[in-house]
Amino acid sequence: MENPIGIFDSGVGGLTVLKAIKRVLPLEQLIYLGDTARVPYGNKSKDTIVRYSIENTKFLMQFNIKMLVIACNTSTAMSLEVLRQMFTIPIVGVIEPGAKRAVEVSKNKRIGVIGTVATIKSKAYQNLIKSYEKGAVIFAKPCPLFVPLVEEGLTKGRVADSVVEMYLQDFKTKSVDTLVLGCTHYPLLKQTIKKFFEGKIQIVDSAEETAKIVRKILEENKIQSSIRAGEDMFFVTDAAERFLKVGNEIMRGALKEVKTVQVGR
Amino acid sequence: MENPIGIFDSGVGGLTVLKAIKRVLPLEQLIYLGDTARVPYGNKSKDTIVRYSIENTKFLMQFNIKMLVIACNTSTAMSLEVLRQMFTIPIVGVIEPGAKRAVEVSKNKRIGVIGTVATIKSKAYQNLIKSYEKGAVIFAKPCPLFVPLVEEGLTKGRVADSVVEMYLQDFKTKSVDTLVLGCTHYPLLKQTIKKFFEGKIQIVDSAEETAKIVRKILEENKIQSSIRAGEDMFFVTDAAERFLKVGNEIMRGALKEVKTVQVGR
Repeated sequence: MENPIGIFDSGVGGLTVLKAIKRVLPLEQLIYLGDTARVPYGNKSKDTIVRYSIENTKFLMQFNIKMLVIACNTSTAMSLEVLRQMFTIPIVGVIEPGAKRAVEVSKNKRIGVIGTVATIKSKAYQNLIKSYEKGAVIFAKPCPLFVPLVEEGLTKGRVADSVVEMYLQDFKTKSVDTLVLGCTHYPLLKQTIKKFFEGKIQIVDSAEETAKIVRKILEENKIQSSIRAGEDMFFVTDAAERFLKVGNEIMRGALKEVKTVQVGR
Repeated sequence: MENPIGIFDSGVGGLTVLKAIKRVLPLEQLIYLGDTARVPYGNKSKDTIVRYSIENTKFLMQFNIKMLVIACNTSTAMSLEVLRQMFTIPIVGVIEPGAKRAVEVSKNKRIGVIGTVATIKSKAYQNLIKSYEKGAVIFAKPCPLFVPLVEEGLTKGRVADSVVEMYLQDFKTKSVDTLVLGCTHYPLLKQTIKKFFEGKIQIVDSAEETAKIVRKILEENKIQSSIRAGEDMFFVTDAAERFLKVGNEIMRGALKEVKTVQVGR
C-alpha cells in the first residue's frame, strides 16, 4: 500500500522522529506538518492542544495517509485518545515507546522523566511506566525553557549549561539511572545533558522506539509500501525559512523544500 | 464619552502598558486581550502576525471601544499601518513613544534597542529614532529568549544573568548610554539588566510614554471619560490561570478575573 504516513509536531522537534522512521522504513513516503504558527504547545491548555491536534490531523488526511504519527509528546498526552476516536487509521504517539524503553534500560527502576508543563501534568509517562513496572520510582519535572533554547539553536554553551543545571540538578541527588526525554525537541540538547551527568545516566529518546512500533503496525496491518511511492513532503504553518534552518541541523542538510500552509480555517 | 479603550498583546507583557494607562487615566474603562493561545508573536512571520492582530482587534471592537492600544511591539511593528487603514478609531502603538523617549534621554545619541526577532528585523525603532535624530547611532539586537524567561517567571537568578549577559555584552563595548526595551515583556527583566550594566545606562520602556500619548489623543478628540464607566475586563485566548499568576506580578495582585475566549473563528 503506497499511501503516505502523516506526521505532525508543534514545530521542528518532530523531525527527530521522522528521521528515525526514514532509517527503518526507507520505502515509505512521509508527509510532515510543523505547526510553527502556534508553537509552542507545551504551556497551553488541553482544550487548545486538542483543537490544534485535530486541525493538524485533518490537514494530513487530505493526502490519504494510511497511518498517523503524533511526533509531539504534548499532543500525544492530550489528544491521542480523541484522535483515535475520530479517525479510523492507525495512530501512534511518542509516549508509549519512550515509557517502554525506559523500563527496559533502567536497572534500579528509578526513572526520571522531563517534558513540557502539559506533558508532565498529564501524568501520561508516569502512569504508563507504572503499568509496565509496578515498583518503578518516577521523578518527573517540566523544563519549559528547553523548547525555546532548541528553537533558538542554543543547544550548547553557557546559557544551555545553566538552564540544564537549573532543571536537572534534582535528578543527581535522586540516584536516577535513566532519564526519558519526553519532548521531541530535547534530543538536540542530549550532548549538554550527557555532559551535565558526566555520562552516569541512560538517556532515552522515543524517536527510535517509535519508528520500530510504526514498522510493526505497518506489518501487522499489511500496509507497508513495496516500492518508493513518492518524495517526502514538508509543511509548516509559518516561517518556513526558520524551520529549514533548524530542521537541517536535525536532517543534516537533507531538507530542501518546505511549504507554508494554513490549517484549521 | 464612556466607551472603553481596547488593549491587546500576544500575552501578559502588555499589562505593563495597561498599568501605566490606569495610572494617568483612572476614569477610563480598559478591556485587555492577551492572545495566549498563539503567544509568542516575535518569531513568527509578518503575514501571521498581521492576521492575529486583525483578529484581536475585531474581538475588541465588539465592546464599542473608542480607541485601540497595541501593547505589543511586534504587533505594532507589523500591523499598525494595516489596522489604521481597516479601522476608523484612533490606534496607538508602543514603538513611537519609546523611540521618542530614547532620543530625549540619550546624551551621546548612541542608542541600543532590544526586542523580538520580528521587531528588530522590521527596523521600526531604527527608522523612527533616525527620523527624530538624524545623527543617532543605533545598535539593535533581538533577544528571543527574554519572552520565555519572563513567561516562566525566571526574571532573576543565574539563568537570567547568563541570558542577559549573552545578549547585552555587546552594548557594553559600544558606549551606548540608552537602551530601549522594545518589547512589553522586558520591563520585568529591568532589575537584572540594570545590575548587568551597573546602573551605567538609561533604560527606556515605552509603557509610561504610551500612556501619555493615549491621554493626549483622548483630549484632542474630546473622548475622555468624565465618570468611571465600568470595571476593567481581561480576556485571554488560553490558560487563564497561568496569565493570572504572571499577570499579578505586574499588577501586584489587582487582577481578579480573567475570561478565556476564542478569537478569529
